[in-house]
Amino acid sequence: MMKTKHVVDLADLSHEELIEIIHLANSIKEHPEDYSDACRGKILATLFYEPSTRTQMSFKTAMLRLGGSIIGFDNPQNSSVSKGESLKDTITVVGGYADIIAIRHPLEGTAAAAAMYSASPVINAGDGGHLHPTQTLTDVVTLYNEMGRLENLTIGLCGDLKNGRTVHSLIKTMSTFKGNRFVLISTAELTVPQYIKDIINSSECGYVEIPSLADAMPLLDVLYMTRIQRERFASEEEYRRQNGVFVLDKDKLKGAKKSMRILHPLPRVDEIDVEVDYDDRAKYFIQTVYGMYGRMALIMKMLESGDRTPSPRIMPTHHYRCCNPKCITASEKYLPAVFREAGGDMLLCRYCDGRTLI
Amino acid sequence: MMKTKHVVDLADLSHEELIEIIHLANSIKEHPEDYSDACRGKILATLFYEPSTRTQMSFKTAMLRLGGSIIGFDNPQNSSVSKGESLKDTITVVGGYADIIAIRHPLEGTAAAAAMYSASPVINAGDGGHLHPTQTLTDVVTLYNEMGRLENLTIGLCGDLKNGRTVHSLIKTMSTFKGNRFVLISTAELTVPQYIKDIINSSECGYVEIPSLADAMPLLDVLYMTRIQRERFASEEEYRRQNGVFVLDKDKLKGAKKSMRILHPLPRVDEIDVEVDYDDRAKYFIQTVYGMYGRMALIMKMLESGDRTPSPRIMPTHHYRCCNPKCITASEKYLPAVFREAGGDMLLCRYCDGRTLI
Amino acid sequence: MMKTKHVVDLADLSHEELIEIIHLANSIKEHPEDYSDACRGKILATLFYEPSTRTQMSFKTAMLRLGGSIIGFDNPQNSSVSKGESLKDTITVVGGYADIIAIRHPLEGTAAAAAMYSASPVINAGDGGHLHPTQTLTDVVTLYNEMGRLENLTIGLCGDLKNGRTVHSLIKTMSTFKGNRFVLISTAELTVPQYIKDIINSSECGYVEIPSLADAMPLLDVLYMTRIQRERFASEEEYRRQNGVFVLDKDKLKGAKKSMRILHPLPRVDEIDVEVDYDDRAKYFIQTVYGMYGRMALIMKMLESGDRTPSPRIMPTHHYRCCNPKCITASEKYLPAVFREAGGDMLLCRYCDGRTLI
Repeated sequence: MMKTKHVVDLADLSHEELIEIIHLANSIKEHPEDYSDACRGKILATLFYEPSTRTQMSFKTAMLRLGGSIIGFDNPQNSSVSKGESLKDTITVVGGYADIIAIRHPLEGTAAAAAMYSASPVINAGDGGHLHPTQTLTDVVTLYNEMGRLENLTIGLCGDLKNGRTVHSLIKTMSTFKGNRFVLISTAELTVPQYIKDIINSSECGYVEIPSLADAMPLLDVLYMTRIQRERFASEEEYRRQNGVFVLDKDKLKGAKKSMRILHPLPRVDEIDVEVDYDDRAKYFIQTVYGMYGRMALIMKMLESGDRTPSPRIMPTHHYRCCNPKCITASEKYLPAVFREAGGDMLLCRYCDGRTLI
Repeated sequence: MMKTKHVVDLADLSHEELIEIIHLANSIKEHPEDYSDACRGKILATLFYEPSTRTQMSFKTAMLRLGGSIIGFDNPQNSSVSKGESLKDTITVVGGYADIIAIRHPLEGTAAAAAMYSASPVINAGDGGHLHPTQTLTDVVTLYNEMGRLENLTIGLCGDLKNGRTVHSLIKTMSTFKGNRFVLISTAELTVPQYIKDIINSSECGYVEIPSLADAMPLLDVLYMTRIQRERFASEEEYRRQNGVFVLDKDKLKGAKKSMRILHPLPRVDEIDVEVDYDDRAKYFIQTVYGMYGRMALIMKMLESGDRTPSPRIMPTHHYRCCNPKCITASEKYLPAVFREAGGDMLLCRYCDGRTLI
Repeated sequence: MMKTKHVVDLADLSHEELIEIIHLANSIKEHPEDYSDACRGKILATLFYEPSTRTQMSFKTAMLRLGGSIIGFDNPQNSSVSKGESLKDTITVVGGYADIIAIRHPLEGTAAAAAMYSASPVINAGDGGHLHPTQTLTDVVTLYNEMGRLENLTIGLCGDLKNGRTVHSLIKTMSTFKGNRFVLISTAELTVPQYIKDIINSSECGYVEIPSLADAMPLLDVLYMTRIQRERFASEEEYRRQNGVFVLDKDKLKGAKKSMRILHPLPRVDEIDVEVDYDDRAKYFIQTVYGMYGRMALIMKMLESGDRTPSPRIMPTHHYRCCNPKCITASEKYLPAVFREAGGDMLLCRYCDGRTLI
């Protein structure tokens, strides 16, 4: 039985729980028929306050393949729920209908807020640029299956490493395994934030920064590609100059190990040339199938306890408000201000993990 | 087996049938596993011509928890059905696909019109400001469970009693039980229509009007809160003056009985302060769960007969058209004009119950 | 087991396979309970890049009545899938989630393109004005049941025969049965294209053209009505002049055989008067129920093989691009240019069947 009821951050799971979920995912993959009634009679609510068809289909497929059912909505425009009703009320009601909730929202910290009010377990299916734990679970299940281990891997991460939440989350999770080396492949402006480097430094892993995909290629056991949005570049000239440096094509792939594996959280735009799809090292499509098994395992584990008691009321810890304008507390005013002290005058918001100076 | 095939109005059910449904709802609540295959293989179509995510999720959850399945649509903009196809044709087709239909529509009388053409039983899931019988069923199941009886209750109704269809419908239904007293709490302008007072007067129940929530509070066994829309007030000054008089907060609650129960059809906007949620008397969230069990029981009873024969053709009774511009007959011209004589020169429309003078 | 994996065109099925599916549809109709678990555990993805609620509900009902489940989307506006992700990537991912895919798209040739990349079988649920094979399957199952045979029928087709893909497809399919006679009822401008007449001429069937519905009526065993869009007429005067000539009403029906059957692909606008609905010869509503059984049979047959291996990569056959601006290759640039030589300088596009001159 899992120690945590809700999964807002993949770090909510202990190392052992994560391994257990990966093993369960593989067991489902090997013998899907043994699990086809595992959630019979259970209902998953997919509350998508912004469209994300891919993520929603993955969750739905996972629940349906366990014999469960689905309710929910996929678009705030269609939904009377998001008009004039607080998140608290919606979650309280849906937590009474459904056995488990997957929530997606454009604002950071929404899943943590939802978990406060839901009688049923809540899975964070993406809260703005903050967290997206089931994507990282997808990545980890893929690595475990394709590489045979989660340790001692040289993992290249390429693209916009500054803003990419999937990159941050993957590094955080893989840093908990021994001997991994991260090769950070980006422009100097788009490298990972310092706090991510600090996490690596305090782990049994290491990193190097290499500003060229071609140069990094021969080192890599894994290449994790992500998109750089055009508007992230300093200028249009900069974009044109850099354009292509971080695009994976057959030519750059020539420098890679035969055993290298290419991952991508999808959707892909043009950072991987279509020709690469036909290379045996391309694993970004099968990665979505691993993601489905990972979500199946996670849902099963979270439903195991059957705990439907609402959380006790949480009281404010401070009189301040979080100063992150994208934090859910900025729009849902009744949420109690809850911070943890981060030393000095710094408070960390319980919802969005944002920093507020007092 | 129910005598009526369709449920357009809760009054379509006999007193005995209503009691039977409440008992079935409670039986499902006690032993949900006994009913998890009750509708296996059956399909509910949810035809929502206007978004109402809450109502739709309640219906879907109800059907899924009975082992059934769902088809339907949730938005006219998304749906080619509502463009260029008559209600009659849509209902005829969907009545051939689904075993039971729940229909929601902005125009009054739509559910009655749908029932004319559907081979499968039709449930009214709200037709404009007219009727919403499963909300009243929700309220009654809640009262039965929370109060232990449906008779001899002092029921306060607070807010916009003039326009609130849930209030009218609840009074109509509770007037069929003995000894209930209605405390009507509103401004003079927003009290219940005369025809509702007539219904109470001709029943074994009574009513008083009290213009202050605080004053009424000590009398009440039940407080049924509803929203007053700002635009219902005579003027902005009036709104500001009255603002707060009909808002339930912890302070006003001090005057209430310890055993009082607070209900609300939801969504709540600001007519109940969030602090009240933590009071044990607040039952408006658990009310939605009772609603789910009520809908499960209703669907089960309506599917019992298995009658899939289309209704015989109904011919017009008069040469007039209903003069209610919000009546479904105003937009669906092929609908036969059907009225019942209401004395004098008055006709009552079979669809919307509106009055037409000849 | 079917020889074809995907059904893009009804002509993908052999004559024997079509007959087998019709018989299976009838067996399901007679004993639905024998098939209520036939697809238990299987998932149908309905990928609707344009809304078509009717078609989508028919597919969903079919899959649910076989015990299967549904994922998918119904509107490009709601869906992040269609934004910035290629059809190839979406299909590759969904083909990994679902066991079978029904795809609807405004561009011609989309289903053929999807079939190239899907590990799971693909059904064309309509690709622009090109093909809609399950509508024709619906028509054929209806004819078989209502007429008792698919041969030696005199079939009137009325309306816009030039642009109606359902008309073209029905003629193509019914021409493969012996002794059918097609009565083409339209203005001279809106008659069937020459290539359709060529198909009839090269078959064991024949056709006549009659510019009046009333004149054609007595000849017909079957009347297949379709809509003429107002904008198809040469001018507003022409529309007014012709208006009514191709509308079926009780009066025109007086000239018909008692045994005639009226079909329509729906939605009907005003080309059939509502009074005709009450005539026993009107079969356009029951036709949708036959369509549901036809789709159930098709899904069952297509899932029989369980083949989930992706198709081998297809390489371009020519250096040209299809010159049809509504062809899927016009927007999805990575699609290989695949043509078959049609004699002279003519190439036929593998996706949209459009002609390109070189």
